Amino acid sequence: MLKGRHLIDIMDFSVEEMNEIFELAHEIILRREQFSHVCEGKLLATLFYEPSTRTRLSFESAMIRLGGKVIGFSDAGSSSVSKGESIADTIRVVGCYADIIAMRHPKEGAPKVASMYSPVPVINAGDGGHQHPTQTLADLLTIKSIKGTLSNLKIGCCGDLKFGRTVHSLIKAMSRYEGNSFVLISPKELKIPDYTRKEMDNKNIDYSETDNLEDIISSLDILYMTRVQKERFFNEEDYIRLRDSYILDKGKISRARKDMIVLHPLPRVNEISYEIDSDPRACYFKQVKYGMYVRMALMMKLLGIQ
Amino acid sequence: MLKGRHLIDIMDFSVEEMNEIFELAHEIILRREQFSHVCEGKLLATLFYEPSTRTRLSFESAMIRLGGKVIGFSDAGSSSVSKGESIADTIRVVGCYADIIAMRHPKEGAPKVASMYSPVPVINAGDGGHQHPTQTLADLLTIKSIKGTLSNLKIGCCGDLKFGRTVHSLIKAMSRYEGNSFVLISPKELKIPDYTRKEMDNKNIDYSETDNLEDIISSLDILYMTRVQKERFFNEEDYIRLRDSYILDKGKISRARKDMIVLHPLPRVNEISYEIDSDPRACYFKQVKYGMYVRMALMMKLLGIQ
Amino acid sequence: MLKGRHLIDIMDFSVEEMNEIFELAHEIILRREQFSHVCEGKLLATLFYEPSTRTRLSFESAMIRLGGKVIGFSDAGSSSVSKGESIADTIRVVGCYADIIAMRHPKEGAPKVASMYSPVPVINAGDGGHQHPTQTLADLLTIKSIKGTLSNLKIGCCGDLKFGRTVHSLIKAMSRYEGNSFVLISPKELKIPDYTRKEMDNKNIDYSETDNLEDIISSLDILYMTRVQKERFFNEEDYIRLRDSYILDKGKISRARKDMIVLHPLPRVNEISYEIDSDPRACYFKQVKYGMYVRMALMMKLLGIQ
Repeated sequence: MLKGRHLIDIMDFSVEEMNEIFELAHEIILRREQFSHVCEGKLLATLFYEPSTRTRLSFESAMIRLGGKVIGFSDAGSSSVSKGESIADTIRVVGCYADIIAMRHPKEGAPKVASMYSPVPVINAGDGGHQHPTQTLADLLTIKSIKGTLSNLKIGCCGDLKFGRTVHSLIKAMSRYEGNSFVLISPKELKIPDYTRKEMDNKNIDYSETDNLEDIISSLDILYMTRVQKERFFNEEDYIRLRDSYILDKGKISRARKDMIVLHPLPRVNEISYEIDSDPRACYFKQVKYGMYVRMALMMKLLGIQ
Repeated sequence: MLKGRHLIDIMDFSVEEMNEIFELAHEIILRREQFSHVCEGKLLATLFYEPSTRTRLSFESAMIRLGGKVIGFSDAGSSSVSKGESIADTIRVVGCYADIIAMRHPKEGAPKVASMYSPVPVINAGDGGHQHPTQTLADLLTIKSIKGTLSNLKIGCCGDLKFGRTVHSLIKAMSRYEGNSFVLISPKELKIPDYTRKEMDNKNIDYSETDNLEDIISSLDILYMTRVQKERFFNEEDYIRLRDSYILDKGKISRARKDMIVLHPLPRVNEISYEIDSDPRACYFKQVKYGMYVRMALMMKLLGIQ
Repeated sequence: MLKGRHLIDIMDFSVEEMNEIFELAHEIILRREQFSHVCEGKLLATLFYEPSTRTRLSFESAMIRLGGKVIGFSDAGSSSVSKGESIADTIRVVGCYADIIAMRHPKEGAPKVASMYSPVPVINAGDGGHQHPTQTLADLLTIKSIKGTLSNLKIGCCGDLKFGRTVHSLIKAMSRYEGNSFVLISPKELKIPDYTRKEMDNKNIDYSETDNLEDIISSLDILYMTRVQKERFFNEEDYIRLRDSYILDKGKISRARKDMIVLHPLPRVNEISYEIDSDPRACYFKQVKYGMYVRMALMMKLLGIQ
């Protein structure tokens, strides 16, 4: 039963609950017209304490496509909510207006605190480098829709594995399905943190590490690319050197299987060459669309509609 | 007849007109579903020349809950309306698009000027330290709803009475009803201004002043707490010393009557201890909800719907 | 056939296509109620990389008045779209959410690039000093509605003709209709650029230049005033001297014909004296309303509705 629940961490939901969301998302995709009024009278509040335009527009269009409406703010700077007020108070005030809340916050744990005081469901739309569970739901729905399954897949994760929260969440979520294995592809400076490695070892997750994308690309079912974020570096030189190390181009993708799919949480900088965009394996814009559909399904479930 | 009128100052409306709004608000609360389409096709413009997220979201959700829609801006900084254009021109332009306008402005009198040129009703959503009439309507609806009456009440106003416009407006509005008396509780540095005291004397308003909350709390029907705003002080030291002087905590509230109610315009900083939140006398989050309902009723009246 | 097309430059549309839009706009004006649901289920994205509140609110209210809804951002500063992402990627992402996009951008050509990658129609809502085609549509609809024709008119363009893109586009568009002539009225510092003059000569456009508004005002059917924009000057002194040179006041307008109309793209600073506002020839606020109607018609056409 997802009605009235919050989504702060992807592990808040059981595999069965995630599957329930994916099934509803598939129904929405197939019969979109039938769902265009199901959230009539419902109001989503998007509380974005830092800008994240793509995620915000995804939530907003999801609610609007269901017939609901939206209030909110897109930046704490143009908001007065920071005027010394606690998250607890803000959420209780907004909970008087809205039926469901999507919160983005630069501080880890802020959406968790919000959920403890909120009279309505709270969805974590990203908290610092911590969690971004609806991105993970989008990733899984994309894989399930295109590959037809969430099991027995070999998934390469490439790029910034040290700071990239999307990859950590993806591994956590995908390892709950049977028979999946992971190849972690990164320069040594951006390898997964030790605590993540230990966690993976403890859970008996099947993974290997490499710094060479070209060598292993032919073995992959899924290649999950991530951005090497400038913000994470103290040193411009290191950034420029590493940024260019793991660019997916025509040369590298020519070695991949015909049915491999390339995913990316976006925005990309240059880690995927533009020449790849027209390759049928490039699925990162489809992923955007699945992101909207999965948010539609999620909000319906949390609101207890279907 | 409120249709087509503006609301700039709470004294713009007669007692009968305020009561008309409260009655409609009560109907909305009782039969919310029946009102969910009454503003279909109506468009509210929220012109916020300074951020005030709570007030803006209250207006926006009020219009949306009536079936209407919203355009606007939340901050003059991310707007181009200041490009040398007069308030008069801006309001005539926006009046071409919207059916009703809620304006927040840092300068006193700006909404008044706007109303002189607007082809559609203008609501003052706060102008500097001057007026915030919909907050007062929210306060009165809360009192009427919970206490059952707006007469014969003893109202304590505590905190910053020098700069706190909500208290001045509350006193003005409540003194129009029979048999109400006021206790003004503040440190001497934040007492009501002389001109307000004179005004109260001229109108024969029944009030007393004290700097001790604990001594008089047991005599009150309503305790209206206000924030000691950092912005009002030149001196951090003074702020810290005074801020903590008038904190409502378990000790103090234990002396109050069982049916006293605590109100606060929010945001609070620490003038009400969090341990009070679960006390049934704490009504400041209910006040937020009544604020939305009273704005629903107000906009319906100004638009001539019912 | 306008369905699925973009509008980047006013010359993208043939005269017939513009007339089609004006006819639909007239129908909307006459039978507004009949159009209040035609865009139900449609979603406009307003991507404003620089603030332009009037234009944004015009697009948003146009879509809302047709029954559609809106997502977007009003300022790149409170958006994260600039995080190193290309216009091409942003537009492909937003194209997953929205049915039509209005883009404002400080860089010339940005909307053109966007249209090359967008899966949905893109409307240029102003790109730097370059193009602002919906302003021109608004101007033409206003003239057609009030003067009853777009032909055989003598049009005076007054003010900043050097940087004012609205005037260049107006001349381009109006010269496609029969028998129109232009009088260009400006101080020598703000005359039209040489390349525009050459273009006009090449196209055999009938125009003359003068620096004296008073002398020629009596011959005009239309007086199109423009703002002398402070942003365009390096030197405050020059700005102040020139700003005041071409103010339309009671004295000057007394020499004009009774049926001349005064237009202005707004915002005005002081180039039209406030005393003119009540003159029946002052049509610049009507122009705002026509701007909304022409955007309604345009979006319907691009979406293939009617």
